[in-house]
Amino acid sequence: MAVPEDPNRVLIFDTTLRDGEQSPGISLNTHEKLEIAQQLARLGVDVIEAGFPITSHGDFEAVREISRKVEGPVICALARTAAADIDRAWEAVREAEFPRIHTFIATSDLHIRHKLQTTREDVLGQARAAVAHAKQYTDDVEFSPEDGFRSDREFMAEVIAAAIAEGATTINFPDTVGYATPEEYAAMFTELYALVPELHEVVVSVHCHDDLGLAVANSVAGLRAGCRQAECAINGIGERAGNASLEEIVMLLRTRAPYLGLNTRVDTREIARTSRLVSRLTGYPVQPNKAIVGRNAFAHEAGIHQDGVLKERTTYEIMDATTIGLDANSIVLGKHSGRHALQQALSDLGFQVTGQTLNMAFKRFKEIADKKKQVTAMDLEALVTDEFREEVAGYQLEWFDVEASSRRPPHATVGLRTPGGEEVVGSFTGDGPVDAIFRAINAATGVDARLREFRVDAVTGGQDALGETSVVLEVGGVAGSGQGVSTDILEAGARAYVRALSNALRRRELAEEAASESPAEAVPTP
Amino acid sequence: MAVPEDPNRVLIFDTTLRDGEQSPGISLNTHEKLEIAQQLARLGVDVIEAGFPITSHGDFEAVREISRKVEGPVICALARTAAADIDRAWEAVREAEFPRIHTFIATSDLHIRHKLQTTREDVLGQARAAVAHAKQYTDDVEFSPEDGFRSDREFMAEVIAAAIAEGATTINFPDTVGYATPEEYAAMFTELYALVPELHEVVVSVHCHDDLGLAVANSVAGLRAGCRQAECAINGIGERAGNASLEEIVMLLRTRAPYLGLNTRVDTREIARTSRLVSRLTGYPVQPNKAIVGRNAFAHEAGIHQDGVLKERTTYEIMDATTIGLDANSIVLGKHSGRHALQQALSDLGFQVTGQTLNMAFKRFKEIADKKKQVTAMDLEALVTDEFREEVAGYQLEWFDVEASSRRPPHATVGLRTPGGEEVVGSFTGDGPVDAIFRAINAATGVDARLREFRVDAVTGGQDALGETSVVLEVGGVAGSGQGVSTDILEAGARAYVRALSNALRRRELAEEAASESPAEAVPTP
Repeated sequence: MAVPEDPNRVLIFDTTLRDGEQSPGISLNTHEKLEIAQQLARLGVDVIEAGFPITSHGDFEAVREISRKVEGPVICALARTAAADIDRAWEAVREAEFPRIHTFIATSDLHIRHKLQTTREDVLGQARAAVAHAKQYTDDVEFSPEDGFRSDREFMAEVIAAAIAEGATTINFPDTVGYATPEEYAAMFTELYALVPELHEVVVSVHCHDDLGLAVANSVAGLRAGCRQAECAINGIGERAGNASLEEIVMLLRTRAPYLGLNTRVDTREIARTSRLVSRLTGYPVQPNKAIVGRNAFAHEAGIHQDGVLKERTTYEIMDATTIGLDANSIVLGKHSGRHALQQALSDLGFQVTGQTLNMAFKRFKEIADKKKQVTAMDLEALVTDEFREEVAGYQLEWFDVEASSRRPPHATVGLRTPGGEEVVGSFTGDGPVDAIFRAINAATGVDARLREFRVDAVTGGQDALGETSVVLEVGGVAGSGQGVSTDILEAGARAYVRALSNALRRRELAEEAASESPAEAVPTP
Repeated sequence: MAVPEDPNRVLIFDTTLRDGEQSPGISLNTHEKLEIAQQLARLGVDVIEAGFPITSHGDFEAVREISRKVEGPVICALARTAAADIDRAWEAVREAEFPRIHTFIATSDLHIRHKLQTTREDVLGQARAAVAHAKQYTDDVEFSPEDGFRSDREFMAEVIAAAIAEGATTINFPDTVGYATPEEYAAMFTELYALVPELHEVVVSVHCHDDLGLAVANSVAGLRAGCRQAECAINGIGERAGNASLEEIVMLLRTRAPYLGLNTRVDTREIARTSRLVSRLTGYPVQPNKAIVGRNAFAHEAGIHQDGVLKERTTYEIMDATTIGLDANSIVLGKHSGRHALQQALSDLGFQVTGQTLNMAFKRFKEIADKKKQVTAMDLEALVTDEFREEVAGYQLEWFDVEASSRRPPHATVGLRTPGGEEVVGSFTGDGPVDAIFRAINAATGVDARLREFRVDAVTGGQDALGETSVVLEVGGVAGSGQGVSTDILEAGARAYVRALSNALRRRELAEEAASESPAEAVPTP
């Protein structure tokens, strides 16, 4: 990828599907990853890190699908320094319009000693060989010295000089454990530019974690020190406290543009929708007081603030809600809206839906429209996203009955269709109606799934709100997650549970296949 | 309050109950605020901003109760510059062991022109008069120039010099709209110390909002520039994107102590519990990837990270989970545990529970213990917190019956006890079982409450988890929130709804009383 001509252009490298997807309990299938990648392309990110292909068949497949179908951004795959990792990464991204291989190895003595159990000399050799190997496949090669911030500066300089000499075009410096402060992180770049003048010839990148709440501040400190790529994730998801939030970095650069003098090519009006899509598909909620995309980020409770805002918006608002696409709730359909109106509304929302998916969406739309007076854009998003999940072959919920009371234990009966098309029925008397339904599903499928998490949110406010549920469960040590949408919380819960169970079974199969081929080692990350 | 002898001691000023409580939908009653204040005292904060007494009877009462009962920290009340505000603030805090009055007025031209619609000269006069008036009551007076960061530096310097001359002992500089970057915020202090050398004689304070994701970075930049008080809130709650997170500031100072050279007297092992209590009582969830207190903050999914952590914890962890009290889940009770064991376990958790409250808690404990194999510390916290909520006089849920099915609309019947002790019954056929129960409650009470939000979380993992629900509803324009805990999601939902409804009715009464006395104006804040 060419370095942009505008010296103040910051490249946005989105790692929602790689570092973000490593968060506990997230298990996106290929279709869901593709949907997120397509939305990231609409958002206008420069690079999509789509996955870590060597780690599983599922990851490989998803990266390949995204490479085939998503146009615009660079599609990047992660790889350790081993040739097999890099080969697999290339196989996954080779069909992309703009493919990138991102290879990494730890350079901190702590990691070299305890994790890699090797020597600095070996790390230097591996880095050199990995970049050279990747460079045979593509010009666009990124290299990261993992745990860079805690690395000896002179040694790290030696490693990156070697990587640049072998042809790396982007060098990324992760604060893998979220330990840096902005001054220290900026000072590191000043030192590195002095030690390795060749850094001026490549794109230098920041990658910050939020363990101490400083990911965004550190990222921007790095950009001010000369970096021009920011690695980040939607809603700040990722391991532990997550990565720097894409939306916070982008809106900070935009809101403070006159002071910071930096810009991105992100279409900020897609931010709110992207945030909702990622939250819905990962099952990771966004807290109400999250900057930019939290439900309250643009709201005021205290009277005089409202008064101040009315008199002059800028007294209490430094950003306009429409900038991030929060005015998108103007599309409203009613119970008499037809298939064409639905298709048009979905298209306005960026969903190109046809054929069987449109049929299913229309059927669900009519069910919902019968119960709700108005169906809004956010309801449609929830529904369509819900329908996409049907594409995983698995169990389907057919019907359920529940009797619940404070005066006797609740009883549930469910009917499911198996992947083979057979109808199975199960029933259970549980501690609560949800517990009873979930165990009735276990009884019907004969699978001993164990619930780990259950959450319900209302998609939109009001008494006739759509309920959105998330379930994480475990089948014999393999986790699966699922979501469901309905005006009926028990139905939404049952749908989510059935999907989570199908996902867990599918993951278990994939893991078994993979194990029988070449045992994928444990997974490292920058 | 005396300035600490240790020049590196940072005073932690918690505004969870004031700025945090201004978040939309939060409506804590006096008992809940007292419980949070007592936990903040255990946490070891230096100052508790308990409320803004002029704004409502409820706020006044809560500040007075906290002043009477909470020992250790300074108890602070907020007031505008008007004498009536300051009188009311003093009335509320006068019985505190260490009372403080915090008065403020905006100094930015934007606010002076559009919100206050007055002149700089008038603002200067009001600030001077307010501090002088507060000083008659107490030595401990804090002054804030609201929207300080966007204020003309020379004018703001003039105002704070006047405030110090009148006896203000703490000067707080809010970035009211969350607009600053760390360098700019630090530079402001350097400039102010030069313009107003008397600042060296008082405590200088930071107050940052997180609109651009920089609240913690800005706060710490201010501390490095010489400030020694940090205003912050548990879980970072507050208006819009909220305040700087207390837990992030404290753990950043602690984890990077050798580099930053600053310390607090916070007992970090109380952080996790305080976070859970505030989340539960406010109904504000903490996202899994929130720094320090998110569910994943100390977790790893990727294999090699776990491997690395096993080999040497510091490869991927810069903090130890026990530091913030995450080992507290060792208390476990079973169904045969007696009243004394429960009381002891609660006491270990910091809850001194006796008499009727213990009886209620024991009864609920036995119900739960019958359904769950083990009752953990987190379950107990949830239960006891749930019981505290019973103390608001209002409707009580007596029983309910629900029939739900995917094949016909769900039907609910509920029995409630009115505040007067009468039993009332209502039933409804709704869109979903929760909708049916909520509307059956409306039918039983004859109150036309409208649901705004509904959320369910599992308190602890596993199939027999306790469900915790939050409801926000509206009765004739007045909002009320309520939470409920049960292994039965419908029961938890019904409890939460009944409480939210009782809270909304109580708030409406208080608002009507207040309106009939002296119409409290709209509420401003720094």
